[in-house]
Amino acid sequence: MSEGKRKLGIVFASGASNRICCLIIYGATALAMGYDVRVHLVNEGLVAFKKEVLPRLSTDDVDLTTFPQYFKPYVETYLKNLKESISSGKVKDWYSWIKELKDLYKDSFKIYACPPAAQFYNVKKEDLADVVDDIKGAEAFLDEVYGGPILYIG
Amino acid sequence: MSEGKRKLGIVFASGASNRICCLIIYGATALAMGYDVRVHLVNEGLVAFKKEVLPRLSTDDVDLTTFPQYFKPYVETYLKNLKESISSGKVKDWYSWIKELKDLYKDSFKIYACPPAAQFYNVKKEDLADVVDDIKGAEAFLDEVYGGPILYIG
Amino acid sequence: MSEGKRKLGIVFASGASNRICCLIIYGATALAMGYDVRVHLVNEGLVAFKKEVLPRLSTDDVDLTTFPQYFKPYVETYLKNLKESISSGKVKDWYSWIKELKDLYKDSFKIYACPPAAQFYNVKKEDLADVVDDIKGAEAFLDEVYGGPILYIG
Repeated sequence: MSEGKRKLGIVFASGASNRICCLIIYGATALAMGYDVRVHLVNEGLVAFKKEVLPRLSTDDVDLTTFPQYFKPYVETYLKNLKESISSGKVKDWYSWIKELKDLYKDSFKIYACPPAAQFYNVKKEDLADVVDDIKGAEAFLDEVYGGPILYIG
Repeated sequence: MSEGKRKLGIVFASGASNRICCLIIYGATALAMGYDVRVHLVNEGLVAFKKEVLPRLSTDDVDLTTFPQYFKPYVETYLKNLKESISSGKVKDWYSWIKELKDLYKDSFKIYACPPAAQFYNVKKEDLADVVDDIKGAEAFLDEVYGGPILYIG
Repeated sequence: MSEGKRKLGIVFASGASNRICCLIIYGATALAMGYDVRVHLVNEGLVAFKKEVLPRLSTDDVDLTTFPQYFKPYVETYLKNLKESISSGKVKDWYSWIKELKDLYKDSFKIYACPPAAQFYNVKKEDLADVVDDIKGAEAFLDEVYGGPILYIG
């Protein structure tokens, strides 16, 4: 990581389809601004990047979302709008968007799986979508983003 | 934003009445310490700042809260104490407190709505409480707070 | 806190047993890297550090966890693996691990309870596990960690 470059760290713990949008919006924006971006996948956020789970985060399945009960109709609106935008090609599904960012920004954008999360959730490297670069611990993550803020998306 | 001033970024994604307290306590404290504070409203956190929703976050309605099931009685205690403190005038309701901070700290305290959140949750500028300054993207938010930490209240 | 030392702030708001792992993994890692680490306990995160509640976060009680519905079987896997690792002595229970970190790193690792959280959740200093150092406000917390990132574990 070049000296002097701005940095953004993102811990994705939530796994919710109404939170992965933040990973992508803040990540894509920071990359476009020339930042180095590192994502650390932990807990349900790691499970969300399993090959068979990640596509589900681009569907309108309310079981993948999190909210206080009052917000349920608003989350349903979000899911409906998201689905329509993806179907009509206005917005890429999350997987394709992340894949495109990785192709475009290469070493500036890395996604790591947390080793203890992998162990406790029974997730192996080969279970994960190909956008995940490596299984790499908190030490590497904290060190590579030091100097920039960390968004803990919980 | 002046060079050299300390900065605090707050992303409010949660919308929960047992999380907005953190936005206000950390925000008010940082402002009193001379920081520039920027809040970015996303997901249910944006919905929470709709004119007709924000007052509900100062009530004892458990449907606006989030918690693992075990903590339910503790959250009810929080809601009861909060309601009593507001009724007796010991604590301002959240809206009035934010309004007061904005009057007091002016340009040091800005609240922005995230454009894609506004789009996907069908929220327009005129739907939002008057304490929201502008609809402004992740680029402006990240840039204005760089150098300080970001609390992602999810 | 020495000048020039790296810093990590952690706000623990969630109280969930599938989130306290992040407090400990990131905290322990940063301490091993020579950082100063400060934890601020707020909301259900403060309740989680009550003497009689903290041991429950090392059990397989699903009522202490948070997740979108879809992830329930994965969280049960986490709880099962965690319980087995603790029973077999491969991993310390959370309380013992935090206690050990405090013994090892002394003033580099402080855990504070947020005063308004203590007030609204009816929690007194003597109700808290002995790993909590003090009741100390947002001003001290923000100031002691400035320069480093803050993980808001919500």
